[in-house]
Amino acid sequence: MAKNLEISVLYDFYGDMLTEKQQEVIELYYNEDLSLAEIAAHSGITRQGVRDSIKRAEAQLQEFEEILGLAGRFHAFHEAFVEISKNAKEIRQINSKYYFSRDIAERAEKIEMISSRLLQME
Amino acid sequence: MAKNLEISVLYDFYGDMLTEKQQEVIELYYNEDLSLAEIAAHSGITRQGVRDSIKRAEAQLQEFEEILGLAGRFHAFHEAFVEISKNAKEIRQINSKYYFSRDIAERAEKIEMISSRLLQME
Repeated sequence: MAKNLEISVLYDFYGDMLTEKQQEVIELYYNEDLSLAEIAAHSGITRQGVRDSIKRAEAQLQEFEEILGLAGRFHAFHEAFVEISKNAKEIRQINSKYYFSRDIAERAEKIEMISSRLLQME
Repeated sequence: MAKNLEISVLYDFYGDMLTEKQQEVIELYYNEDLSLAEIAAHSGITRQGVRDSIKRAEAQLQEFEEILGLAGRFHAFHEAFVEISKNAKEIRQINSKYYFSRDIAERAEKIEMISSRLLQME
């Protein structure tokens, strides 16, 4: 089975809602990048058991996203902050080249600061 | 028991994770503002039964927030968009009073537009 990269993103959002056992297999498979066989050897269950367990955890993560839609909303926020930050930076550059307004510079910097703080928070 | 207004906010985020029955009591109690006795009469269970059911649903909503922390994060985003929007508006006003830069005006408007679109999305 191909590793579904979207799962890593959903796991960041909803991982704590999974059981400890589910968290363990998802972490080994996606974060540690172990194979099914390696996880089977590590956890003492069959390769098929590991596969089923991962499939169930993946389905659950996708269900959380269908119900709550938070990864999608955060993604929209992320894009917005990037776009806001870009525009604020351009305002600061245009201002420092042609207008030298301290009032504009300060506000543009403030917007850039808020955006970058929130981009780090996600 | 006093109605906990924070619950309405958490319900907006996590309501779909509750059972249909739990959604119903929370909606009657918080959104329709019915009393425990009214909900009891409406749903054919005792007042104490309604109370327990609401308490359980509330505890579950709070637990979702403890695990996922999304209401808190969205609140921080909301505040950020308000602050960004305020600064962009000021830039636009300062610019239109003293500098008349079309490049600055367009970018400040763009920032305001993105912020207000996202404030509506929440």
